[in-house]
Amino acid sequence: MIYPKIPLAQTVIQLCKAKNIKHIVISPGSRNAPLTIGFTADKFFKCYSIVDERSAAFFALGLAQQLKHPVAVLCTSGSALLNYYPAISEAFYSDIPLVVLSADRPKHLIEIGDGQTINQKYVFQNHILYSANLKLDLKDEKNIPLTEDLPIMKNLEDKLERFLGFQKDIQTHNEIEINTSINTAIIEKGPVHINIPFDEPLYETVDKESIETKSTDVVLKEKPVDSYALQECYEYWNSATKKMILVGVNQPNQIEQKWLDDIAKDDSVIIFTETTSNLHDDSFLPSIDQIIAPLTEKEQIDLQPEILLTFGGMIVSKKIKSFLRKYQPKHHWHIDKKKAYDTFFCLSMHVEASPNQFFESLLPKITHYVKSDYKETWLAVKDRRLERHNLYLKKIPFCDFIVFDLILKSIPNHSILQVGNSSAIRYTQLFNLNKTLEVYCNRGTSGIDGSTSTAIGFSVVSKKRTVFITGDLSFLYDSNGLWNNYIPNNFRIIVINNQGGGIFRILPGQKNTKNFDTFFETKHDLNAKYMSKMYSFEYLSAKTGQQLKNRLENFYSESYRPKLLEIFTPRIINDEVLLKYFDALV
Amino acid sequence: MIYPKIPLAQTVIQLCKAKNIKHIVISPGSRNAPLTIGFTADKFFKCYSIVDERSAAFFALGLAQQLKHPVAVLCTSGSALLNYYPAISEAFYSDIPLVVLSADRPKHLIEIGDGQTINQKYVFQNHILYSANLKLDLKDEKNIPLTEDLPIMKNLEDKLERFLGFQKDIQTHNEIEINTSINTAIIEKGPVHINIPFDEPLYETVDKESIETKSTDVVLKEKPVDSYALQECYEYWNSATKKMILVGVNQPNQIEQKWLDDIAKDDSVIIFTETTSNLHDDSFLPSIDQIIAPLTEKEQIDLQPEILLTFGGMIVSKKIKSFLRKYQPKHHWHIDKKKAYDTFFCLSMHVEASPNQFFESLLPKITHYVKSDYKETWLAVKDRRLERHNLYLKKIPFCDFIVFDLILKSIPNHSILQVGNSSAIRYTQLFNLNKTLEVYCNRGTSGIDGSTSTAIGFSVVSKKRTVFITGDLSFLYDSNGLWNNYIPNNFRIIVINNQGGGIFRILPGQKNTKNFDTFFETKHDLNAKYMSKMYSFEYLSAKTGQQLKNRLENFYSESYRPKLLEIFTPRIINDEVLLKYFDALV
Repeated sequence: MIYPKIPLAQTVIQLCKAKNIKHIVISPGSRNAPLTIGFTADKFFKCYSIVDERSAAFFALGLAQQLKHPVAVLCTSGSALLNYYPAISEAFYSDIPLVVLSADRPKHLIEIGDGQTINQKYVFQNHILYSANLKLDLKDEKNIPLTEDLPIMKNLEDKLERFLGFQKDIQTHNEIEINTSINTAIIEKGPVHINIPFDEPLYETVDKESIETKSTDVVLKEKPVDSYALQECYEYWNSATKKMILVGVNQPNQIEQKWLDDIAKDDSVIIFTETTSNLHDDSFLPSIDQIIAPLTEKEQIDLQPEILLTFGGMIVSKKIKSFLRKYQPKHHWHIDKKKAYDTFFCLSMHVEASPNQFFESLLPKITHYVKSDYKETWLAVKDRRLERHNLYLKKIPFCDFIVFDLILKSIPNHSILQVGNSSAIRYTQLFNLNKTLEVYCNRGTSGIDGSTSTAIGFSVVSKKRTVFITGDLSFLYDSNGLWNNYIPNNFRIIVINNQGGGIFRILPGQKNTKNFDTFFETKHDLNAKYMSKMYSFEYLSAKTGQQLKNRLENFYSESYRPKLLEIFTPRIINDEVLLKYFDALV
Repeated sequence: MIYPKIPLAQTVIQLCKAKNIKHIVISPGSRNAPLTIGFTADKFFKCYSIVDERSAAFFALGLAQQLKHPVAVLCTSGSALLNYYPAISEAFYSDIPLVVLSADRPKHLIEIGDGQTINQKYVFQNHILYSANLKLDLKDEKNIPLTEDLPIMKNLEDKLERFLGFQKDIQTHNEIEINTSINTAIIEKGPVHINIPFDEPLYETVDKESIETKSTDVVLKEKPVDSYALQECYEYWNSATKKMILVGVNQPNQIEQKWLDDIAKDDSVIIFTETTSNLHDDSFLPSIDQIIAPLTEKEQIDLQPEILLTFGGMIVSKKIKSFLRKYQPKHHWHIDKKKAYDTFFCLSMHVEASPNQFFESLLPKITHYVKSDYKETWLAVKDRRLERHNLYLKKIPFCDFIVFDLILKSIPNHSILQVGNSSAIRYTQLFNLNKTLEVYCNRGTSGIDGSTSTAIGFSVVSKKRTVFITGDLSFLYDSNGLWNNYIPNNFRIIVINNQGGGIFRILPGQKNTKNFDTFFETKHDLNAKYMSKMYSFEYLSAKTGQQLKNRLENFYSESYRPKLLEIFTPRIINDEVLLKYFDALV
């Protein structure tokens, strides 16, 4: 077994190991060599080599999304690091733990005109939970920092003693900073940045570690739900006849079934579940837009809740956002251990608890259910809409809408469904989804910049098959996501290619003008065929409903390579079908 | 003619026009619609649509590199903006003017859980010359900000007056901030960030502009060279017998020929010119590494200058950096209007002037040249090295080294040569270059993340043919660079594919082990063929010297599509040939 000779590199590696950070995504470089050498030499770590740091960081995000534990990304100095930023911001808003390890030049080589050097300290300041700036190991007594308050040393012995003292201080500082960073990523679930200066020589190794570091424990504080808050909730909850629960991004199997069953018994509660909520019950209302879009003003007033209870992450549906901003509830409680966004401008309480904790504290106290026809009314609306939805499907030509119906039905049970932004997830939201699927989408920043890489990252550590549905722009944007040697053979990509950003055709721009086509829709005639060949995907394509059905027949069967299915849809009619859909629901 | 209805959008567009910012690189989005509509409706502007913001910003960098005037990039809110960062840092360190226009949500929609929303203010803080945070236009009197010191208004008239007052303040603030930003980009040559909040509706237009803005003049201060500094320079210059001039990144035709001629007459001066310096004379010393690498300690002492005069940007040659750090000159003067890096840890003076200004002030005063054999000695070394160099070329097998010799000789006169990082520019530096070529390379941060996009940007506004030489990793990294509808047919790419990061084989790692191959060299068997097909490049390839010669014969001739030539070189021997080269020079 070999170790990097530089003690600081040993420290970083030891602490990653102590905190059970097993997965290390490495982009090539020289400045980060001490860490690359150390991580890859130790069988404890599973290391991945990905050249494009933008893709590498999203890949790591996908790993962490699945593992629910920090994953480390490691890069060299310079602009390499900046390519991590899109994924860092996604991790920041999606509460996904990520440990960013950036190698840096020592201080005296920064801002002096050396290559691959930028100002790395605090560079992610706006979107990071913690930034640690480690200090350079002192190589020998020559490196003692000279400060004014340091008395001139009289002899070499003095000097050596000083040196050892300084080195110890530095080592202590670095240990504390690394511990704090990683513990923060674990406890608060989000990205942290550890900037690590290394001086040359960078490639030297030793057979035995020269230092031993101490990992400080992660202390997870389980504090009880605030009893005052709870009492207030209880009182209002008991008397309100219109209670709405809205669930955003939520990992599968997070909410205990017994609480969901309890709530389902209450006639005064309706539950809107986004596709990304991973919650299913016949008494819930998925397909939020389907329900809300066609409502008259009178019906909207009927829907307006007295209490809105939310949990989970970002909300996809624009329609429910604008509905709840207009028809605000008297009380909006958000249940989350970490944060509460005032998404509807009427947040009245942030209950700092997990949903399970909150339900456990509240629900057993509810001894009788208030009389209400709230649930019954809206479940009836849901049924009517579903009928209309199915009727509409039979009347329309081949287009995005039809495609989503077919592909969502085709996905085998118990698959992971990763969905791209933004059309893909919005369309998905309009269909009743197979309840055995687990759904993920980068909704922290809703970017199109890394969905492919994220899906691939997830697929690598998931025991289940991952199916990734994406639009053409999002796919082309993150095409480097396929530059990846770890893609499992059962990974499936479905690209819905409508020759541009179809979503813009739904917005109120001047569509079908040259400027609109070029600068909003960004019309193109590219396809995924060459990309598939280049990166050894089996490529299939479809241009009609029948072709699509044929292609889907064996699409998920076992294969020696991952597969990509590209579906070409008619650019011009997609938006019309979608807009008319909402009228047809009435 | 149409204009965006939002006054703030009109303001931004009017000021870009007033300051002659003609080129606008737009990435699609909705929040930036008011600006996209406005820029694309006005024939004054040349707008480009590029989806991937990382590539878009490097493309803009290439435009600005050629134009020597700010180019604007425009994107929507959210992580889109973060993808600009690699190019922004390159612009920052390369002194290239870039105006970053980011649309943002209004303040009340930030950090409340809306999609595509991040904390955009000051997000490039570490690498930006100026960050302007514009304020939202008030739509009507309801939007008046309520502050404690605002007296309660008694009637509507009061309210309206207040509103107009506030709107005027906001308008004034925004005008000042935009003026300051763009003027800073022009004067200080670098990136600035203007963050622009827009509220819905975003797509409304008007036939007549509702506001008129005032552009403040760009005041370029031409201050004389400090006379005290000059006197000091004069005295030392007059007496020193070993003076070295070292020129880094320098735009073509920047230095007046008469000063170069004057210097050339002085036997006590040697001039090391990097390939990126765009300076040529028989009495100069290009191929710096060729001269320095084989020097004995005695010879290095002989080379040590008394005075080192530097100008231009970053230095590519690691060898001269390490030489000058060890054998420091008594005096190091850096001539630059803006900044001076202490690259060799012995900077004694930053002369705040352009090189022309400095030479004009100094050289006419020099009445006699000091007696010295400094120049003669090193010109003789140069000649010997060149002989050895040519001998070596005849003895070696087909490899990167041979390839660079062949392709550099093949480039037609008066072409633009764009070179990727880092092997490509380092190899190029070892050869005597055709003096009619203009050479560019992203040496600000020396990243591999955007060289293709930069080269393409440059080619679009250059009247000359652009030839771009890159390694395989750099090419694959910025593959989205080819996703670009503006590439001229005379654009040429040469990819030297040595199946990985060949540069790492030269570094002191444990090469030819599995971990080294995977995590340092990142060995692969990809090629550029499919990418070329996908993006309609004519594709050629070569695997031997003879094939290469054949391919080069018609490579530069006129064509209906841009061309890409991929040269496969033997991964295993490239590094050996290069390392032995330096021994063979003695």
